[in-house]
Amino acid sequence: MKDDKIKSLDMLFKPRNVVIFEAKQKVGYFIEGLKTQGFNLENLYLISPSKEEVSGLKCNDSFDDIPIDTIDLLILSVKRELVVQSLKEIFAKKKVKFIHFFTAGMGESDEEGLKIENQIREILENPEISTKAIGPNCFGIYCPSGKNAYMPFFPSESGNIALISHSGDMLSRSVGNGALIYNLRFSKGASIGNCVSLQVSDFLEYFNQDDETDIIFIYFEGFSRYEKREGRIFFNLMKEMRKPVLILRGGKTKRGQSAVLTHTGSLGTNEKIWDAIYKQTPLIEVGSSIEEIIDHLYLFNYFYKKNRNLALEEQISNFPKGKNALVIIWSGGIGIVDTDVLTELGFNLPLFDGNVKEKLMSIYQVKIGSLSNPLDLPWVSRSEKYLELCKVAISENIDLVIMHTDARFGRNLKKRLENLMKIKEYVESLNKMLILILPETPEKNRIRYYRALIENGFIVFPELKRAGKAYLSLYNYGKKISRMENKF
Amino acid sequence: MKDDKIKSLDMLFKPRNVVIFEAKQKVGYFIEGLKTQGFNLENLYLISPSKEEVSGLKCNDSFDDIPIDTIDLLILSVKRELVVQSLKEIFAKKKVKFIHFFTAGMGESDEEGLKIENQIREILENPEISTKAIGPNCFGIYCPSGKNAYMPFFPSESGNIALISHSGDMLSRSVGNGALIYNLRFSKGASIGNCVSLQVSDFLEYFNQDDETDIIFIYFEGFSRYEKREGRIFFNLMKEMRKPVLILRGGKTKRGQSAVLTHTGSLGTNEKIWDAIYKQTPLIEVGSSIEEIIDHLYLFNYFYKKNRNLALEEQISNFPKGKNALVIIWSGGIGIVDTDVLTELGFNLPLFDGNVKEKLMSIYQVKIGSLSNPLDLPWVSRSEKYLELCKVAISENIDLVIMHTDARFGRNLKKRLENLMKIKEYVESLNKMLILILPETPEKNRIRYYRALIENGFIVFPELKRAGKAYLSLYNYGKKISRMENKF
Repeated sequence: MKDDKIKSLDMLFKPRNVVIFEAKQKVGYFIEGLKTQGFNLENLYLISPSKEEVSGLKCNDSFDDIPIDTIDLLILSVKRELVVQSLKEIFAKKKVKFIHFFTAGMGESDEEGLKIENQIREILENPEISTKAIGPNCFGIYCPSGKNAYMPFFPSESGNIALISHSGDMLSRSVGNGALIYNLRFSKGASIGNCVSLQVSDFLEYFNQDDETDIIFIYFEGFSRYEKREGRIFFNLMKEMRKPVLILRGGKTKRGQSAVLTHTGSLGTNEKIWDAIYKQTPLIEVGSSIEEIIDHLYLFNYFYKKNRNLALEEQISNFPKGKNALVIIWSGGIGIVDTDVLTELGFNLPLFDGNVKEKLMSIYQVKIGSLSNPLDLPWVSRSEKYLELCKVAISENIDLVIMHTDARFGRNLKKRLENLMKIKEYVESLNKMLILILPETPEKNRIRYYRALIENGFIVFPELKRAGKAYLSLYNYGKKISRMENKF
Repeated sequence: MKDDKIKSLDMLFKPRNVVIFEAKQKVGYFIEGLKTQGFNLENLYLISPSKEEVSGLKCNDSFDDIPIDTIDLLILSVKRELVVQSLKEIFAKKKVKFIHFFTAGMGESDEEGLKIENQIREILENPEISTKAIGPNCFGIYCPSGKNAYMPFFPSESGNIALISHSGDMLSRSVGNGALIYNLRFSKGASIGNCVSLQVSDFLEYFNQDDETDIIFIYFEGFSRYEKREGRIFFNLMKEMRKPVLILRGGKTKRGQSAVLTHTGSLGTNEKIWDAIYKQTPLIEVGSSIEEIIDHLYLFNYFYKKNRNLALEEQISNFPKGKNALVIIWSGGIGIVDTDVLTELGFNLPLFDGNVKEKLMSIYQVKIGSLSNPLDLPWVSRSEKYLELCKVAISENIDLVIMHTDARFGRNLKKRLENLMKIKEYVESLNKMLILILPETPEKNRIRYYRALIENGFIVFPELKRAGKAYLSLYNYGKKISRMENKF
């Protein structure tokens, strides 16, 4: 950390004890979250002078009644008028490592809230207090390996993706939809709100050293008003990062920036500064929806699951090599639209050279479909011929193979799956990438087929443009990181 | 029709009899399609000299064996070398109203195929023959009210959307995914392939007069090489259209155009010509995916179901009036991203004037959330207060209300739904539009909640950008059509 007051954020993510003050119905989610993660409830202390029980757990009247001297994580949810007074009273009685200021209606709200934030900051800056905090105006922490979560629907299984978010909502949706749609799992997540104490860069630095984390995503609204050096620190840190960091910036439009002010009160940044950051660091920007976030995390995660144990040099050589795509379809019209979409995204669709074309013709010997790129092979996806044709078409100058597949014509899916497995094996033996496109429809067949594909290690996207964008980001990240590595 | 040879395409969509030559396994889908629509199988004649049965139906040896003089719809699926000879033999024996040339590997394939197409065209141009045709290289016809379909998974219930498609694949996906995802229903669909006889404009003109059709979608790859006047005819026709026509053009990029050549062999068109068409006719372009097609059809369909029985003048006054959006959310971060997305699409998010703001504050009296636009109202979506706040916020200068909703926090959905119903009623009483955003996740709660919303007449999109694009198209169409009407 910048001021060396604490060595790490371990106790924030994996607290030995958690105290909630004041316990009331609104914090029920937090209690349910801890329960579903299997947090030892003997180490959870609820404090409420007015309530006997919350979420089925007994409350304590005051901090005097709890048998610990050092609180690892204090969740403070008193109303704003009581925050400063409460802090003083608590610090008089207990040591506190981390505070999660849940209370909202602060700096994002009005002058009065801003004043309270400044008072909090003053208290925390007292050199005798070594407490760090997230918030105010934030949902809190997620860390399955620490049995810690603020929402009951978060998976209790650990993964390798860490999230930093100015918005609890964006964090919850990324975790929730990522888990449901792509079966993503996460190492850690922090909703950090108005950033009166801990900043984005604190988490970035921590995750960079965290063995549980391979990929980092930031939902970002602006640099905090409380840390003038934060922009510079972030920039310098990003230059050193050797784990992929993806960012979605809220408030990029002028009108969006005015909305940010009422959300976390963060400060806007000149677009030119961001251009410089993207150019000089490996930071990767993702679009403007939850879908794009989880699409990106899904593909990066796929890559790092395969490559995480390799040395950086080897990892680098495994990134996608270029933007030459081969599209294999089972019927013509979608191939035309695909060609437009991929071309507009910046892909090339190389045409086959004479040699390859001749080989394809000698195998296919049918007039329907098209032995071009997109390679249109109707009616044959279950045959030996299909396998042969695909192998010939996946020539040296192809980087990415995109195949459309569909569960609607459900007969003999097994034979088709066998073919796909062999094509996948072949593509991977050439160190190229295969992405399947399976449209998202609420059919039983689709769900069954999708599961079979995922179990067999395929990358499956619901839509081409989404797949193309995620691939380009992985490609661009590989290019950036290899350029930066070669500088050293 | 241009040459007045036939008065209408009725017998193509609603044939009294269908003959398939040659019946073989590959046309099994067609037979299953007719069966699931409830086509009277006594009027379906399969012809195959080599087979006794196909799909459980008896085959006839030759055309001599079938007891009809006039064939309404002949599906010709012989291999290309036999097409011309077959045509001559059939015309010597029977009258044929319509032919569906299923055979592929024609003009899109090579010089030999092109030669065959020219021979077909020559035969059909014989003034003694009044036969019209679709294809070659096409999947055929869909018309539930005619009990006619080429795929067994097409709904047998009728709707009010008609489709014209150079690609059978795009037609099948639009029907299939549109039905599954948005419960869309269709009046008619035609996959028209290489257009040696009937052109896009023939169908456009027919659908314009068709009582079953309110909305028309075209998947378009280019004007046919067989009808030099088609571009001009299309243009003139579009100027007169008073039903919405949506178009997705495949082959817009140069590389995509080269893919078109191997698909339907259609001819590319200068982008400037399209700019003129969009400017001077009510034609509306949709993006580049099946998702965007069905998103648009869904919203246009919603509008026309409500307004189809009104006079054009009244319809026009019911179109969305502008691009001022109010976004209502239940948590902050998504509101920032929404603001960026909507701003980039061209929407305005007006801020509340002092009067409205004061009213909101007097009702809400809570510091969390945000009484701005996006209107962020956490924790209250089930309360009376929520209803009041929304009503105050939906002021005169708002055209579109977008509300995020979620099924994850599933308790007390009934109360929330009641509130939503009242808000919807209020929005509609002001002749504005309400769109709900419910993310697409494979959860039981989501499916149940979604169904409840649809049953209660809500417009529900899975994602904001998709909703925004569809809304803007409906708005633009309304603006175009009212401008054109006022010219008369």
